[in-house]
Amino acid sequence: MSSPQTSPEPEQEATSSPTWQQIVEAHALIAAHIHRTPVLTSQTLNRISNAQLFFKCENFQKTGSFKIRGAANAILSLSAEDARRGIVTQSSGNHAAAVACAAAWRNTRAWIVMPENSPRVKCDAVKAFGGKITFCEPTLTARKETATKIQAETGATLVHPYDDDRVITGQATAAKELLADYSDLDAILAPVSGGGLLSGTCLSARHLKPSIRLFGCEPAKADDAYRSLQSGILQGIDSSDTIADGLRACLAPRTFAILRRELSGVLLVNEEEIISAMRFLWERMKIVVEPSSSIAVAPLLKPGGLASLNLPPRSDGAPPKIGIILSGGNVDLSSLPFSRA
Amino acid sequence: MSSPQTSPEPEQEATSSPTWQQIVEAHALIAAHIHRTPVLTSQTLNRISNAQLFFKCENFQKTGSFKIRGAANAILSLSAEDARRGIVTQSSGNHAAAVACAAAWRNTRAWIVMPENSPRVKCDAVKAFGGKITFCEPTLTARKETATKIQAETGATLVHPYDDDRVITGQATAAKELLADYSDLDAILAPVSGGGLLSGTCLSARHLKPSIRLFGCEPAKADDAYRSLQSGILQGIDSSDTIADGLRACLAPRTFAILRRELSGVLLVNEEEIISAMRFLWERMKIVVEPSSSIAVAPLLKPGGLASLNLPPRSDGAPPKIGIILSGGNVDLSSLPFSRA
Repeated sequence: MSSPQTSPEPEQEATSSPTWQQIVEAHALIAAHIHRTPVLTSQTLNRISNAQLFFKCENFQKTGSFKIRGAANAILSLSAEDARRGIVTQSSGNHAAAVACAAAWRNTRAWIVMPENSPRVKCDAVKAFGGKITFCEPTLTARKETATKIQAETGATLVHPYDDDRVITGQATAAKELLADYSDLDAILAPVSGGGLLSGTCLSARHLKPSIRLFGCEPAKADDAYRSLQSGILQGIDSSDTIADGLRACLAPRTFAILRRELSGVLLVNEEEIISAMRFLWERMKIVVEPSSSIAVAPLLKPGGLASLNLPPRSDGAPPKIGIILSGGNVDLSSLPFSRA
Repeated sequence: MSSPQTSPEPEQEATSSPTWQQIVEAHALIAAHIHRTPVLTSQTLNRISNAQLFFKCENFQKTGSFKIRGAANAILSLSAEDARRGIVTQSSGNHAAAVACAAAWRNTRAWIVMPENSPRVKCDAVKAFGGKITFCEPTLTARKETATKIQAETGATLVHPYDDDRVITGQATAAKELLADYSDLDAILAPVSGGGLLSGTCLSARHLKPSIRLFGCEPAKADDAYRSLQSGILQGIDSSDTIADGLRACLAPRTFAILRRELSGVLLVNEEEIISAMRFLWERMKIVVEPSSSIAVAPLLKPGGLASLNLPPRSDGAPPKIGIILSGGNVDLSSLPFSRA
């Protein structure tokens, strides 16, 4: 909670949010290119959480995270002329790989600005898809300036990691699939960083089940969304060293506007809880997820975690059904945070 | 290949192999207690192997490995009187947890003899299911003697990890499910240690697809099955320090008899190849598998790996379809073999 507060970035004002029709169109555009990821369950995790949990496994998604949904929608919907000039973006990792991958599908170039402390495995993925990396200081300011400079030099189209309606509608397709498989969810928990995944989740879920409760899960060490929702004023963080390396960005006006309207709350998770939840998912569910994903189940592994969501009782008397979006599985296996317990 | 050769253990002579009808009955007995595990595919692994691979994910099975299939069949089929006196077994880990779990289902006790170098995560699992562990020296001789002593003292029923028809028929249900999902496989690769999984796989697969090719994958550091099949005489190994801790046992007459009849070959894999395949499955498929599992795909990740299987061409001209049994996912996350590359 000691992260430096800065003024929010001077983004353009958010306009109206994407519509359900746009989400349906995005899904139609990208479906043949991405995986319909499975939804897994775990009796052990149900028992510990006193809930019925449904894990949407975007760690199994192409490029190893949900980010390909938004990147694919943004890049596949470009005109041939725009696509020809290439794509530029800035990202700490998963969006970077997704843009490089989708750019390769369009047979065009991708310039990727990455903070110099990005995990090597994420840099390697960008290179594997043929993306050209420019490293910068690990601050949002440096990332933005570097991307703007490249955009000016090359004429490439900027595909922002979250402050972009095409990206948000792409990310919205994960919750659309989850609710198509399990329409009866009482709540969904998803990680929040820039808010692309979470705001897209809100749009799909609110349309498909109006009464659903929606929660963001955020590192206490990068708590801008929590503070923004509490204060009603968009707050910033210029840098954070949370282990959840995918969650070091902060909301934009566009995502903030959606979250203010739809979210029931932001749940803060400390570093130890993130790592413990990650270890739990690896050991018990035998799946590889990154810290930015395990954060979305961490609140339910704490004593009293379920009660803190304050969900209304189900009419069938069963434990609440909660969707968890496991956003990605890109971790550097050479430097894992598991020490001998 | 430098492991000390010992005389084979003086097991009883193998009689006739389990029948298809017994496998069907075993499946009916255990199906409600175990998971129908998913079969995963990976375009990346298909590309690298020049084959179509179908991964039967027993790492997602209850207790984290296929071993619950055989243990459940053996223990659920006991008479009430036999069950009451409890179960004893010796195992380096996964069979231990499986016996403890299935014994708990029967509300009876389980005495488990484990070599003192068993992974802690596997010991913890036994304890979590209420099993009582007795540690012994890490040799097959010590394991066997200790189990026999406990059996004499308690009157418990011995459930051998593999030299038991009820166990073999239970393990056979994994390949039965795999071929029910994908009947068109040209070959199946599975790890081999004592041969319970592999001989069960042979029985199911040969019945369901008589022309199928069947291969065992074995650590070069514990190559008794390879040498047994080569020489036609059952060979032994009293101890091995292969990282594939589930593959340190050796064939019994019962499993050897089945493998001699059904197997196309044993593929030897060195330690580096086991670790490299494990890392590959974790990084690319985002699943947690143990070294004893990754060994079953390792031969196909080598240059010329597919050719070494010498499979006949498919009539449809497509790449061969190969089933891989990923036997388990119980690893100690505190001591992983991944160093900075």
